[in-house]
Amino acid sequence: MEYTENLQIEKSETSKINSVNFNKLDFGRVFTDHMFVCDFADGKWQAPKIMPYQSLSFEPSARVFHYGQAVFEGMKAYKDDNGKIFLFRPDENHARINKSAARLAMPEFPKNYFFKGLEALLKLDSEWIKPGVGNSLYLRPFVIATEPAISASPANSYKFIIICSPAKSYYNSPVRVLIAEEYSRSADGGVGYAKAAGNYAAQFYPTSLAQQKGFQQVIWTDANTHKYLEEAGTMNIFFRVNDKLITAPNNDRILDGVTRKSIIQLASDLGITCEVRQITVEEIKTAARAGELKEVFGVGTAAVVSPVSAFEHKNELFEIPELENSYGQLFKKSLLNIQHNVSEDKHGWRYEVK
Amino acid sequence: MEYTENLQIEKSETSKINSVNFNKLDFGRVFTDHMFVCDFADGKWQAPKIMPYQSLSFEPSARVFHYGQAVFEGMKAYKDDNGKIFLFRPDENHARINKSAARLAMPEFPKNYFFKGLEALLKLDSEWIKPGVGNSLYLRPFVIATEPAISASPANSYKFIIICSPAKSYYNSPVRVLIAEEYSRSADGGVGYAKAAGNYAAQFYPTSLAQQKGFQQVIWTDANTHKYLEEAGTMNIFFRVNDKLITAPNNDRILDGVTRKSIIQLASDLGITCEVRQITVEEIKTAARAGELKEVFGVGTAAVVSPVSAFEHKNELFEIPELENSYGQLFKKSLLNIQHNVSEDKHGWRYEVK
Repeated sequence: MEYTENLQIEKSETSKINSVNFNKLDFGRVFTDHMFVCDFADGKWQAPKIMPYQSLSFEPSARVFHYGQAVFEGMKAYKDDNGKIFLFRPDENHARINKSAARLAMPEFPKNYFFKGLEALLKLDSEWIKPGVGNSLYLRPFVIATEPAISASPANSYKFIIICSPAKSYYNSPVRVLIAEEYSRSADGGVGYAKAAGNYAAQFYPTSLAQQKGFQQVIWTDANTHKYLEEAGTMNIFFRVNDKLITAPNNDRILDGVTRKSIIQLASDLGITCEVRQITVEEIKTAARAGELKEVFGVGTAAVVSPVSAFEHKNELFEIPELENSYGQLFKKSLLNIQHNVSEDKHGWRYEVK
Repeated sequence: MEYTENLQIEKSETSKINSVNFNKLDFGRVFTDHMFVCDFADGKWQAPKIMPYQSLSFEPSARVFHYGQAVFEGMKAYKDDNGKIFLFRPDENHARINKSAARLAMPEFPKNYFFKGLEALLKLDSEWIKPGVGNSLYLRPFVIATEPAISASPANSYKFIIICSPAKSYYNSPVRVLIAEEYSRSADGGVGYAKAAGNYAAQFYPTSLAQQKGFQQVIWTDANTHKYLEEAGTMNIFFRVNDKLITAPNNDRILDGVTRKSIIQLASDLGITCEVRQITVEEIKTAARAGELKEVFGVGTAAVVSPVSAFEHKNELFEIPELENSYGQLFKKSLLNIQHNVSEDKHGWRYEVK
């Protein structure tokens, strides 16, 4: 608390909000009027600032440009019909950005800075959060290495920044996915569990190959054998075989998703069996052939719940017909209702920004 | 050629050179007076520019900060006693930055831009290249994704930049290394063979753990079994068992180093057997115990040839006594003499900047 008494706020003189069409938003392209910035220097985080959203100056030798020393989080803020603003399990994001930072030899960010920064920013830019289930303000906290020196070692200066972008769901229609047979997302003993910047660029090329074949996303398999289903890079994946859900366990290759763990809890609440265990590609193909694979869906903060309508593996295509009583749709609705203060929050996941 | 007729050159009004102590250079911390910048926009590389070395402005949403879409190269320029300037196998660096870029779904950079940019920059900053074997100007071409939008997909705008830093060898004294048992550098089907930014930050934490134990570097092993020796992250590794050299083959996890391939050729020229094959940790430990492991050295543009004086694996420490007739020293001298125009260049590796 003591730090944030120093929070300097420089307000934007004008707002861009009237130039934004909130009914037609591309993900992550429009940003609100303000951002939060905190510098790490001389061994500690300096006084944080809120300032108008703006470009920043970096030396071309800043380490982030050369060695990818950068981590991020994805969160959303929601508004209910009474204008109250909520975050969803923000403690999880704070814990995870520090877990990611530790793996990349970056300093942890203090919890009180994180929360007071978010709250001050959301209050300043509250008009950007539209009420109504499905609307949200996507929040992007990230940390980058700024030290202007290209030795291959951890930097001694960083910037922690939060930028905010109004959002609809990331994937609006069902996605078709390709199961990886050759390319990999991460290694045992690597950084796959972290939201490390480099994990994402590494997926762009294999994903573009999938897109050329008519698939929007890749479901990654383990790098050693390509036999086990892992995650989709921007989403964790759930499979429903008959009435049972299955999702891969967390390990050092798979991101510990907040939406994933919330859905495991919701399934338990609803009496739906959810097995958290290794899943082979073969068992899913076998289930699909037998007509027992009822649903596949990806889950994540940006995507919320995104149904998968087809997958391909070894040139065999499996279509997954749309389902009347979809678990994915049920979880999506349950989550959105909790997030927007429409339904009871029995696990205390909502965090009101006051 | 047609493009570079448009090369705009804005000269620096003053030079920082007199403030630099060339006898006491930290790697990659001091930069010359100029830099080369070329923007990719509207589907093509725009007219390149040389300008005073300076900070640049980036939106906080620039994709490189979030998804690590960034690749780089390391090269050096050398000056002989007559003031002629040389590069070493620059075609290899051009080819490799484009190979790296392709893996990260980034546009390739035209060869004539690359060479004319380098040459114009080296002529402007030629005073920064000191003659004398061991002195060089380290060149850092790199490409970063600048599009201000945080969707997880390849950017549509980039900057290609070259910055230059006067250098001595990166590692000045023999290094002690730890062989990886748990952490990994890259996965099969991943981006380990590319000079992708994210590969480097991923090594910082495991390397810091090694440093706490008194080792400067980690030698990475394969992520699947940790049984095979791969590379050191900033260097490829050679082992000398009796009079025979061994180094790991290139694959999708290991960087195709220019110094590595030059040393394989030099070994062949000198009649030294060099086996390019998988190497187990066990065979190296067995050789060390039998007194047959004569040398271990890392090789790379920054390091040139860096002797390894000790390695540890599973808490067993192996000291490698200094050798009278070291292959590593022989290769280092041969390479430096070729690079500095002191000896014959029978493979046509030198490239004179005229």
